[in-house]
Amino acid sequence: MKIQLAFDYTTVQNMLKVLKSVRDVIDIVEIGTPMIIKYGVEAVKVVKNTYPELTVLSDVKIMDGGEYEAQTCVDAGADIITVMGVANESTIIKVVETAKKSGRKTLIDMMNVPDPVKTVKFLNDIGADYICIHNAYDALDMDKALSMLGETANLIPKVKLVIAGGINMDTAAKVRAFSPEIAIIGTVVRNSDDPRGTIIELRKALEA
Amino acid sequence: MKIQLAFDYTTVQNMLKVLKSVRDVIDIVEIGTPMIIKYGVEAVKVVKNTYPELTVLSDVKIMDGGEYEAQTCVDAGADIITVMGVANESTIIKVVETAKKSGRKTLIDMMNVPDPVKTVKFLNDIGADYICIHNAYDALDMDKALSMLGETANLIPKVKLVIAGGINMDTAAKVRAFSPEIAIIGTVVRNSDDPRGTIIELRKALEA
Repeated sequence: MKIQLAFDYTTVQNMLKVLKSVRDVIDIVEIGTPMIIKYGVEAVKVVKNTYPELTVLSDVKIMDGGEYEAQTCVDAGADIITVMGVANESTIIKVVETAKKSGRKTLIDMMNVPDPVKTVKFLNDIGADYICIHNAYDALDMDKALSMLGETANLIPKVKLVIAGGINMDTAAKVRAFSPEIAIIGTVVRNSDDPRGTIIELRKALEA
Repeated sequence: MKIQLAFDYTTVQNMLKVLKSVRDVIDIVEIGTPMIIKYGVEAVKVVKNTYPELTVLSDVKIMDGGEYEAQTCVDAGADIITVMGVANESTIIKVVETAKKSGRKTLIDMMNVPDPVKTVKFLNDIGADYICIHNAYDALDMDKALSMLGETANLIPKVKLVIAGGINMDTAAKVRAFSPEIAIIGTVVRNSDDPRGTIIELRKALEA
C-alpha cells in the first residue's frame, strides 16, 4: 500500500520542514487544495524541485477547463493531477488525455458523485489511473465512505483504488479490508507531535 | 444588469493591461479558476490592490474545507467567493458564514447539481448571495443551461440570479429574457480585438 501525505492547512515553509523528516516514510506528497488556493502550483513546483524523487500530487479538483488546468499542473511538475468525478465527462477526458500526453497520472475524486457505479465504469473505460473514495473534511462520515466503497470496490481494480479522509488508528482496519493502492492521510499527522512516528505506526496498521 | 468579466486563460500582467482599458465598463472582475491554480489568491490581491474600486470575485470553486478556503480568499481581498453547489451542504454553509463574517458575498455555482430545485431552496434558506447557472466551458450547451434556468428561475430572486458561459451577441437575447443580476462574460472578450467595444456592445444587447 502506498501512503500519500496531504498538506492542506499550512505554509510552504512548514511543509518543506515536515517533508524533510518524513520523506523516506511516505510514497506520495499531496499539495492540498487549500495550498493551491493560497500559492497556486508554485507550491507544487517548490516541492518537486526540492525532492525530485517524491511523487507529487496536485489536488486542484478540476471542475472545468480540463486541458488548460491539467497542463498548468504538468508544467509545474505534478506527477498526479486530480479532477472531480462530478465534473462533465468531457472535462474528465481532457484531464486524463492531457496528463497521459506528458506521462503523468490522474486521480478522480468521487466526492458526491450521484451515481458512483456509472461513474466508475466510465472512469475505467477512459483509462483513469486512480479512483478516490473521498470522505469530505467538512462532512466526515466514515460509514458513508465505506458504503460507497462497498458499492464500487469490486468494480475498481485494486491498483486504482484510493481511499481518503478520516484515516487514523481507529479506522485503519476498516480501510485495510479494501486493500487500496493508496491511502491518503493528513489530519492525523498534522495533529501529531511526532509526524514520522505516526506515519510509521499508521502504515503498519494499514498493511497488517 | 451587472457585467462580470472573467479572466481565465491569461497572465496577471495581461489581465492588468486589459483591465486598464475596460475597468469603467464592467462591474465585477473575476479571477477565474485557471488563474487561481496558476497564481493562487495572489492574483486576487494584485487586482484588488491595483483597482480597489472594482468588485473582485475569486472563482475558487470550493468543494471542501469551506471555512479555511473562504478565509484565504477574504484575506486576499476578494469581495465574492465561489463554492460549488455539488459540495456538501456543510461546506456551503461554512463558506457563506465565513464570507458574511467579513462582509463578503458568496456565489454558488450550480454546475452539475443533480437536483437543482432542491439545491436552490437550500441556498435561499441559508442566505447565499448569488446563484449561478453555469454553462461549462468544456461542455457548452446553452439549451441545457436554459433548461436549468427554466426549472429554477422562478425560485431564484432576480437579485441573486447569475448566468455564466456561452454569453455572446448570438445568445444575449435568451439571457436577457431572464433578467439576471449578473451576466458573466469571458471568451467573447478574450477573442475580441476590441475588448472595450465588445463589452459595451454586449451590455447594450443584454440590457435592451
